[in-house]
Amino acid sequence: MRITDVIAAKRRGEELTDEQIGFWIDGLESFADYQNSALLMAIVINGMSFRETSTLTRAMLQSGSSLDLSRYGDVTVDKHSTGGVGDGTSLIVMPVAAACGKIAAKLSGRGLGHTGGTLDKLESVDGVRTDLSQREFFDIIDKTGIAIAGQTDSLCPADKYLYALRDVTATVDSIPLIASSVMSKKLAAGARNIVLDVKTGRGAFLKTREESETLAKIMVGIGSRVGSNVSALVTDMDSPLENCIGNAIEVQCALRILRGEERGEVYDVSKALCAALGVDGGAFDRAIASGAAYAKFESMIAAQGGKPGCLDRLPVAKYSVTVEARESGYVADVDALKVARAVLEAGGGRKRKGDPILPEVGARLHVAVGDRAERGMPLATLYFSRPGDEELAALLADAFSIAAQEPPRKSRIICKIDKEDL
Amino acid sequence: MRITDVIAAKRRGEELTDEQIGFWIDGLESFADYQNSALLMAIVINGMSFRETSTLTRAMLQSGSSLDLSRYGDVTVDKHSTGGVGDGTSLIVMPVAAACGKIAAKLSGRGLGHTGGTLDKLESVDGVRTDLSQREFFDIIDKTGIAIAGQTDSLCPADKYLYALRDVTATVDSIPLIASSVMSKKLAAGARNIVLDVKTGRGAFLKTREESETLAKIMVGIGSRVGSNVSALVTDMDSPLENCIGNAIEVQCALRILRGEERGEVYDVSKALCAALGVDGGAFDRAIASGAAYAKFESMIAAQGGKPGCLDRLPVAKYSVTVEARESGYVADVDALKVARAVLEAGGGRKRKGDPILPEVGARLHVAVGDRAERGMPLATLYFSRPGDEELAALLADAFSIAAQEPPRKSRIICKIDKEDL
Repeated sequence: MRITDVIAAKRRGEELTDEQIGFWIDGLESFADYQNSALLMAIVINGMSFRETSTLTRAMLQSGSSLDLSRYGDVTVDKHSTGGVGDGTSLIVMPVAAACGKIAAKLSGRGLGHTGGTLDKLESVDGVRTDLSQREFFDIIDKTGIAIAGQTDSLCPADKYLYALRDVTATVDSIPLIASSVMSKKLAAGARNIVLDVKTGRGAFLKTREESETLAKIMVGIGSRVGSNVSALVTDMDSPLENCIGNAIEVQCALRILRGEERGEVYDVSKALCAALGVDGGAFDRAIASGAAYAKFESMIAAQGGKPGCLDRLPVAKYSVTVEARESGYVADVDALKVARAVLEAGGGRKRKGDPILPEVGARLHVAVGDRAERGMPLATLYFSRPGDEELAALLADAFSIAAQEPPRKSRIICKIDKEDL
Repeated sequence: MRITDVIAAKRRGEELTDEQIGFWIDGLESFADYQNSALLMAIVINGMSFRETSTLTRAMLQSGSSLDLSRYGDVTVDKHSTGGVGDGTSLIVMPVAAACGKIAAKLSGRGLGHTGGTLDKLESVDGVRTDLSQREFFDIIDKTGIAIAGQTDSLCPADKYLYALRDVTATVDSIPLIASSVMSKKLAAGARNIVLDVKTGRGAFLKTREESETLAKIMVGIGSRVGSNVSALVTDMDSPLENCIGNAIEVQCALRILRGEERGEVYDVSKALCAALGVDGGAFDRAIASGAAYAKFESMIAAQGGKPGCLDRLPVAKYSVTVEARESGYVADVDALKVARAVLEAGGGRKRKGDPILPEVGARLHVAVGDRAERGMPLATLYFSRPGDEELAALLADAFSIAAQEPPRKSRIICKIDKEDL
């Protein structure tokens, strides 16, 4: 077999055999980058069947080692989001699940572009480390039942290589490539129960509900094929999920939820995600109300290096600027992408992999879609650290649309995909 | 502008702007190979409009220098084939045109895969050089009115780079990429009158008549857009054009035609190609009959370094093996690709760029499609130099199909495309 034959087959729109896909991924780094990128482009344009995507996922999974969580039995849980704006649900779902007897073992990623990353949020807490060795990861889980760490280099090296190449060759937007990238990493992370939050809309990578549902179904199907208990929610990401967008500010938001001080959409979505992991609504409410979930979060923070009192002194930005409604009416829209861009430009995110971020930077929204706003009322506040960034308030203000009519109510949770739905 | 934006636009199937194409080709070698190959694959799958192809050709043409033949006025002629089997027409068309008062200035290529190259054929003549400097090329033209040389590195460097990359990324089969590659080189070679022989069928790169006609029309269109007088013949390449396939053996075949010792399809096709360059049928016949065309060929060979008497002692292979008809009937088919492969495997062609070739190796066909063959009659002879290669006779024999019925006559020249036909 020659790699050019595999490339030519996909160029002609043929379905690749398991042998062809295995040949490619096994020899990935022995082929030239320009051959791999040509094949990626052919996949992006001509697509892949479910079988091809599933085979690709397995080949990528087998390109490295996997975490073996079998010693914890069937209660291991993990949660993954395809990338949203103002979405700190991992910081809520994992502690609640742990408080309800699950083993919450999550390997997570960093923020890139307009989307945030759980690792960056956690690291905004003084002393917290996410670069845990496998030994440390297991030790912390043994002690607290919960740990959130970065993916080590030995997991899915093929995904790491391909992801870097896709980023610079305009081959990111592809359902089979996204599905195999997510699922190879999630399966390598070893949890028996996985819930996927597939974001859809303006602030998500996939803009249409149809694409997002397709992606969700493929990923659930891949999981069920290898015997994992995977389900997915498709959730709306036209507007930010939380009223906080940033890093330390999203931790603060999660703390308020975990302490039972605040509810709202993020509470409901977290509850639905937990339900998919086998934690029913009553158990969710009790774990919050009793303080058990908050206690789990605190013990994880401590176990991962958080300094005493660190949660009471999260980093705070030096400056802030508040934008006000220029007219009275209903908040018809809050553009997640524009809000995210304002935070990104202020240093709260990274444009390139490896860029440093300013953990204290963020935005707080004072109104949500459907709220009434009167002229002069504060809509949102941008927290920033570099003089001059107050100009980004214009970008933040631009995210809001005010209309005379009350907008129709949209449901945040669009649908749920279980393996039974396939 | 960023190269990833250009790649993404073509991935989405958009028509690239002139600016985008110029940006790509101007910066070609500053972009990563994997970015260029991703864009090539997107072009192969999603195609290019005529305007895009024409702009790409011009950008590639402008990536290097061009030969300036304007001192010779409007009578400069060039001929290009998209690659065939047993096609030595360049060795006939150029001398005839020169004998009829044209300036025959041809830059040519080497054989690759199953197709032969004019340079390799010429270099099978003792002493003949094709790596002429520009100065030598012009000196020879001034003296004889005819020269055939290899393309120098300064002409169309973008084409050289892209061609090498396409070869290893399964992105060769693309009408816009083939058209821009051929036409950028032909336009850089500077002749005012160009005839293109677009091969179609089993032994050609393009297998269908429709594709070949499309390619011919696009190339003629590109030429007319820059004011060149370009026309094309689409000719059948299911079976070899000549009864000789190889290098020295094709020179020998051309010599017999030029001396008026042989006619046949290759004579007719050469005449049609000459007609497209402004040499009418009567002039063609006279140039052959008078010996003027042969004299032009001889003087070119001498000017390009041919040793005295070299045409009388072309290299001859040490061994030969003849295959015979296993049954009586009509020759229904001679598969050009199988004949070419037998010669290639015997060392008469190169599998990779830069491979050495054995000039004396080749095949001679004793029958053509439509001929009657009796059981035991010789069909073809393979001339080879390496003991053991007699086994390739089976491949050669396999090229012949014998049938009870006389096959329908096929026309070798399928159509002619002039700029008036567009």
